Amino acid sequence: MNNSGTLRILIANGVNLGQLGTREVDIYGHLSFDEYLAVLQEAYPDLHIDYIQEDDETRLAHHIAQATGYHGIVLNAGAYTHTSLVVADAVRTTSCPVVEVHISNLFGRELFRRNSMISSACRGLITGFGLDSYRLAIEAIKKFQSR
Amino acid sequence: MNNSGTLRILIANGVNLGQLGTREVDIYGHLSFDEYLAVLQEAYPDLHIDYIQEDDETRLAHHIAQATGYHGIVLNAGAYTHTSLVVADAVRTTSCPVVEVHISNLFGRELFRRNSMISSACRGLITGFGLDSYRLAIEAIKKFQSR
Amino acid sequence: MNNSGTLRILIANGVNLGQLGTREVDIYGHLSFDEYLAVLQEAYPDLHIDYIQEDDETRLAHHIAQATGYHGIVLNAGAYTHTSLVVADAVRTTSCPVVEVHISNLFGRELFRRNSMISSACRGLITGFGLDSYRLAIEAIKKFQSR
Amino acid sequence: MNNSGTLRILIANGVNLGQLGTREVDIYGHLSFDEYLAVLQEAYPDLHIDYIQEDDETRLAHHIAQATGYHGIVLNAGAYTHTSLVVADAVRTTSCPVVEVHISNLFGRELFRRNSMISSACRGLITGFGLDSYRLAIEAIKKFQSR
Amino acid sequence: MNNSGTLRILIANGVNLGQLGTREVDIYGHLSFDEYLAVLQEAYPDLHIDYIQEDDETRLAHHIAQATGYHGIVLNAGAYTHTSLVVADAVRTTSCPVVEVHISNLFGRELFRRNSMISSACRGLITGFGLDSYRLAIEAIKKFQSR
Amino acid sequence: MNNSGTLRILIANGVNLGQLGTREVDIYGHLSFDEYLAVLQEAYPDLHIDYIQEDDETRLAHHIAQATGYHGIVLNAGAYTHTSLVVADAVRTTSCPVVEVHISNLFGRELFRRNSMISSACRGLITGFGLDSYRLAIEAIKKFQSR
Amino acid sequence: MNNSGTLRILIANGVNLGQLGTREVDIYGHLSFDEYLAVLQEAYPDLHIDYIQEDDETRLAHHIAQATGYHGIVLNAGAYTHTSLVVADAVRTTSCPVVEVHISNLFGRELFRRNSMISSACRGLITGFGLDSYRLAIEAIKKFQSR
Amino acid sequence: MNNSGTLRILIANGVNLGQLGTREVDIYGHLSFDEYLAVLQEAYPDLHIDYIQEDDETRLAHHIAQATGYHGIVLNAGAYTHTSLVVADAVRTTSCPVVEVHISNLFGRELFRRNSMISSACRGLITGFGLDSYRLAIEAIKKFQSR
Amino acid sequence: MNNSGTLRILIANGVNLGQLGTREVDIYGHLSFDEYLAVLQEAYPDLHIDYIQEDDETRLAHHIAQATGYHGIVLNAGAYTHTSLVVADAVRTTSCPVVEVHISNLFGRELFRRNSMISSACRGLITGFGLDSYRLAIEAIKKFQSR
Amino acid sequence: MNNSGTLRILIANGVNLGQLGTREVDIYGHLSFDEYLAVLQEAYPDLHIDYIQEDDETRLAHHIAQATGYHGIVLNAGAYTHTSLVVADAVRTTSCPVVEVHISNLFGRELFRRNSMISSACRGLITGFGLDSYRLAIEAIKKFQSR
Amino acid sequence: MNNSGTLRILIANGVNLGQLGTREVDIYGHLSFDEYLAVLQEAYPDLHIDYIQEDDETRLAHHIAQATGYHGIVLNAGAYTHTSLVVADAVRTTSCPVVEVHISNLFGRELFRRNSMISSACRGLITGFGLDSYRLAIEAIKKFQSR
Amino acid sequence: MNNSGTLRILIANGVNLGQLGTREVDIYGHLSFDEYLAVLQEAYPDLHIDYIQEDDETRLAHHIAQATGYHGIVLNAGAYTHTSLVVADAVRTTSCPVVEVHISNLFGRELFRRNSMISSACRGLITGFGLDSYRLAIEAIKKFQSR
Repeated sequence: MNNSGTLRILIANGVNLGQLGTREVDIYGHLSFDEYLAVLQEAYPDLHIDYIQEDDETRLAHHIAQATGYHGIVLNAGAYTHTSLVVADAVRTTSCPVVEVHISNLFGRELFRRNSMISSACRGLITGFGLDSYRLAIEAIKKFQSR
Repeated sequence: MNNSGTLRILIANGVNLGQLGTREVDIYGHLSFDEYLAVLQEAYPDLHIDYIQEDDETRLAHHIAQATGYHGIVLNAGAYTHTSLVVADAVRTTSCPVVEVHISNLFGRELFRRNSMISSACRGLITGFGLDSYRLAIEAIKKFQSR
Repeated sequence: MNNSGTLRILIANGVNLGQLGTREVDIYGHLSFDEYLAVLQEAYPDLHIDYIQEDDETRLAHHIAQATGYHGIVLNAGAYTHTSLVVADAVRTTSCPVVEVHISNLFGRELFRRNSMISSACRGLITGFGLDSYRLAIEAIKKFQSR
Repeated sequence: MNNSGTLRILIANGVNLGQLGTREVDIYGHLSFDEYLAVLQEAYPDLHIDYIQEDDETRLAHHIAQATGYHGIVLNAGAYTHTSLVVADAVRTTSCPVVEVHISNLFGRELFRRNSMISSACRGLITGFGLDSYRLAIEAIKKFQSR
Repeated sequence: MNNSGTLRILIANGVNLGQLGTREVDIYGHLSFDEYLAVLQEAYPDLHIDYIQEDDETRLAHHIAQATGYHGIVLNAGAYTHTSLVVADAVRTTSCPVVEVHISNLFGRELFRRNSMISSACRGLITGFGLDSYRLAIEAIKKFQSR
Repeated sequence: MNNSGTLRILIANGVNLGQLGTREVDIYGHLSFDEYLAVLQEAYPDLHIDYIQEDDETRLAHHIAQATGYHGIVLNAGAYTHTSLVVADAVRTTSCPVVEVHISNLFGRELFRRNSMISSACRGLITGFGLDSYRLAIEAIKKFQSR
Repeated sequence: MNNSGTLRILIANGVNLGQLGTREVDIYGHLSFDEYLAVLQEAYPDLHIDYIQEDDETRLAHHIAQATGYHGIVLNAGAYTHTSLVVADAVRTTSCPVVEVHISNLFGRELFRRNSMISSACRGLITGFGLDSYRLAIEAIKKFQSR
Repeated sequence: MNNSGTLRILIANGVNLGQLGTREVDIYGHLSFDEYLAVLQEAYPDLHIDYIQEDDETRLAHHIAQATGYHGIVLNAGAYTHTSLVVADAVRTTSCPVVEVHISNLFGRELFRRNSMISSACRGLITGFGLDSYRLAIEAIKKFQSR
Repeated sequence: MNNSGTLRILIANGVNLGQLGTREVDIYGHLSFDEYLAVLQEAYPDLHIDYIQEDDETRLAHHIAQATGYHGIVLNAGAYTHTSLVVADAVRTTSCPVVEVHISNLFGRELFRRNSMISSACRGLITGFGLDSYRLAIEAIKKFQSR
Repeated sequence: MNNSGTLRILIANGVNLGQLGTREVDIYGHLSFDEYLAVLQEAYPDLHIDYIQEDDETRLAHHIAQATGYHGIVLNAGAYTHTSLVVADAVRTTSCPVVEVHISNLFGRELFRRNSMISSACRGLITGFGLDSYRLAIEAIKKFQSR
Repeated sequence: MNNSGTLRILIANGVNLGQLGTREVDIYGHLSFDEYLAVLQEAYPDLHIDYIQEDDETRLAHHIAQATGYHGIVLNAGAYTHTSLVVADAVRTTSCPVVEVHISNLFGRELFRRNSMISSACRGLITGFGLDSYRLAIEAIKKFQSR
Repeated sequence: MNNSGTLRILIANGVNLGQLGTREVDIYGHLSFDEYLAVLQEAYPDLHIDYIQEDDETRLAHHIAQATGYHGIVLNAGAYTHTSLVVADAVRTTSCPVVEVHISNLFGRELFRRNSMISSACRGLITGFGLDSYRLAIEAIKKFQSR
């Protein structure tokens, strides 16, 4: 991995965040994920941030397994977190660190959402901070690179 | 909670990090936790950061339950993460958000370290980023306050 | 939801019922699902019945999550009943009631078919009545609307 | 079984539905079960509907095991659903199909109410549709006979 | 099934074996799966061998369920082995025997890889022999036909 | 291990296959195991095949642990597959690869036959192909040696 | 509930305490339950204490569900404690508090006696004090009323 | 134990009840535990009541194990109820009866609070009666002594 | 117990054996249980054999608990074998030995029929011998008395 | 099986009963098993009773599997009851009924002795009657033959 | 570690052995632990034996983690054996071997005492020999050093 | 047991230690078990030490059950530790204490090796000290005798 030059990060969402901005507006404001992405990009002008949103288990796994040229991947696999060995195996094949994020606190929800098939394959986990979980993950990846 | 003025944060370590700087130096550098704390403080000159390190389960729980005037608590309960209902109950009584952090990725370790009694009581969890987990928790708490 | 005017119902099949009419003909007759659908429509001339059949987990979940303008959904998720949290989450986001149906009695089959990830997200369950399970679900939805 | 002539159905309630009409009136109206039964009978003038309500486990099992001359039994075993092998064995000895019904959705309630000792002995299960679960069961039994 | 004439076999891979030839070269040599397939075909000039590789759960199940005219299917479902009831059900509908193969020994890996949803639906299982597992499966299918 | 010269293989049966040729003759023909062995030897004239059949757990383990000069062992431990740690430990001490075989598909039988104490100690597993499982194991061992 | 006037309490025994006074006389004295009841009544002259003893699960549940005009119920369900959802559901329908009592300490007995289906439905539990458990329950009910 | 003279009782609290009087005031009134203790003492002028409150697991166990001269101990071990074998072992060494009390009903709370390590070591259990659980325990101990 | 004089035995059936003589006639002949009882009595003219058949859990338990003057009880509790602690406790209170019998082999049936709540309370168990299980139990009781 | 002529029975003991006559003499008398066998033979002069005692798992299984010419086998497999699939499989291959016996009541002993690998393979089970269990088994086998 | 010179050993007791000499005197004699220690020291005049007894979990862990200059530690963690991950982690950080000892045989006691959190962290375990377990541990440590 | 005169000890090995001296020589030296035995004998000239090594489960159990005249038995049952109830029962019948030893630390190995069927039957357990475990067991037995 070329560590010099612009830091390149991939945000991969496994769930449809299209409803952002219309629900839980009291917590996260009226931003859609696209709008949030714009804010993120603005906050980190030196970063190159790519974004994919993929509901399909297979295609999500493909995107992760075939992502090249990134210094880190921010992954919110949504419901696949709890059921998909395919996505977990894709994470295992990446050459850059993957940071698992969740908007809500997994451990405050239903029991079946506490079991993750993906966490052991990731570098780390950030859960429970709303959309800010994404920013924290970017901060974590930046730190990996600065060492 | 008074949201104006200086942001006050408590870092509470339940384990002896005194060995920091002498082991795993290839990952975290030669900093001791005290040195790391100095770096943190320097990086966040506008924050008031208090630090306690308490090996005793009871006293750790007391510190958490009786912490007042903070905007957030960063908690690394160490081995108590997996055995202490007392610490978890203390977290439940705090009036400010508590962010659980771990240096290593809990989910990449022994099975008995994957079970947390504390996570469901905390606002969120950050695990696997080395000492940088602490900085990320501070970032999260700052964000809570800015909303 | 507009309760006046024609009642609109979506039947969503997660499994390929293309073999209907060729097997178990002694029980359900020689009808294919399309033929059965025609019979249903004929029996309920006042209803608007849409039908989708989707083998793909993701697309099935999409169809459910994005179905609008219906007074009820009849869902036979087939094998996904037992493995798909994505479909279950889609059911949770619908604004109209979803009725889970199964042709055979789930509780008379293999143990792993008795566990449903979807039932707790649905309004009700009808299982074991052959193709007639679909008609009963329509009857249930009609009743919801008549109250 | 004589399939010609009037269809005879037995509704067997294992729980005291005497409180119907006084609670959850917003959902089911102000009907008592007796009143509901009258409505059912009126809606199906061609059917012969017998009704028993039996709180006692043994007598409920007896009623089921010794019911003769019926084309179908609608069974709401109430709490015995989860604890009574005796009732389940009685269902296994009937010569006509038994349809298990529940007013609320079993799968949306406490965990110990999701385990049924009876479902595998019944022809099918209808759960979650309020009192209308009974009508749907009658519809199902009528269909059995019309084939 | 027409047992006379050329034996027709379908190899169905549920995982991307595109990395073959680039890793574990010390064990399996520098062959890609396409090259290996060519070697297999050369070794069995009398066989008609079709090959599909399908990462998508649904399409993999379709290929299996709709494969016709084959005397046997060699199936390496990869990660779906452990999570997909849909693929297992597809295997149950085939009219020719399906042989499950795995390159590595499932029983020498992580615990969650020892549980197979597919094995009970298949005719037999061959696991642990590297790419040679495929050849052994072909040998097994040839034997089925010669009896 | 001397890889040059004749390939030497040991077939070790932990169960009495003396009934072969008298039951399931429709599947495997009227061959006894001795007759089958003769067929195998004839099919592989270049191989040296030794055969032991040992009902006793201890002696079976001894034969395996003390087998020397072989390029591979084909092991059908029968009922000991599910109960004997002693046989499994013997497999762990061999210096040549051991291939576990079973005549029927373990995964299509009783639940207690799906648990194997031996599989994780073996190089690979071949199950479900009738007597042909032995020939496939020999093919596998030959391949090990040709690499 | 009319809180003025005499306090009315129902003691409901699900087990035959007829053997009281003949066994464990060294602990509880030679009192039969009837004699004990007389002592209780004497000790609490201002209370109206009704007593039922019902071995039948259904009738016990009925007594509880239909008890009206009481300020509290003291329930010793005996063996039904561990098996009867019907009794537990009856407790859930009462309009006055139910106090569960046991003569011996449930937690000092066989494992299957530690699981209670009833405790979560009751207001509180008093176990292990011999017959005095009844008096303590009466004290508890008196306190409820005095607040 | 000297049974004559003043009855001596130790109340041992393992949790900080300092918040009494400030929360749940609608149930227990505005009494702090100290005030409640005064009320208790006033209600039982003939008793000698000692009180300790100890958050530390070890010191709590010590107090219990070394308490001498008491006719009974009232123990509310709080969170240690569910995790501390040390406290349970201390209870086992006392020479006077220990009565376990809880303010809320353990069985109406989270599942992990239903498991007690202490109950089998105690003489009896009183749970769910608010602060009055303490008074009931004292009543129980008085009764032990009067026999 | 008076061991001299006529041996008195109670046969207690918890299930309705009224169907005897009409089903499984190829195994047990065309005898009803009453007829079988007559045969038994004839075979053992010196014995006094009482017989009760009680479907009700409570009354069955009563009959057992209050049986006096018998040298042994033969108990076939039917479905209550697997669910009734009340019957088991009744067995524990008898002063004469109780022999548990079953007509079919419990261990050859469904899994939930292998768990018995009663066996540990009985003197011994005889299962799987058809109606002859009753005769064997009588033989066993006779032996108890002859010692 | 030749049903005419003398009834031939094999008693197979898997445990060393050599200590009989020296312990538990108050229950079974001072008979050794050989003496008991003589008594049995004397009591049944028309029967041909063979007896084997085999401590070795393999040889015990052999004796059972190869026993020919018997009308029934009485098997006390001792500790192998709980661990040996080999003995259970041997029972499955016998052509005459096998009756499992135990001297003590399995269900009154340690938990690990309640699990039997053999019971589901046997015709029936007799446990808890001391040495008389053997006589009862013989009675059962005689009955099989007389039908 | 300096292996020359006097061997230095630390005995760390996590439980209060102050009652030694007053109970179980028939087994261990009338020695207190201090007296026993004197005997040990006398028996091993060449050893330097330090002794700590610490009831507090945290301080016990500290003593272990910070013990320096010892050739071995003899640890009897008492009840913490079964609950303390903190003590286990302290053992993992020591630079000298730790030998776990118990006075009674853990495996002959209650089930919850058979689970050890500490054993996998220790070099070895000696349990069941009374106070002599300590001497055996010293013997073991001496042997480590003599190699 | 005659406690005077020479102390007689039996060492019983259930596993083939013939490989001692050829592997792990860096830990235990180049001694074979025979050589080690000679060293042991030399170190304890006053002891009479018998040694058996028996791979067969049955014969091992026999040796243990029939050992007479010993003051103690040192038992390393190897793999039978985890599977053999027969050996455990043999231990239960010995009249002298049996000390279980293992060379490696059972608790540091695979999970299935942590479960022992034998430990609860033995006097004590010594595990993890290499061959020295045998010497420590002899020391323990000597101590038993000196009391």
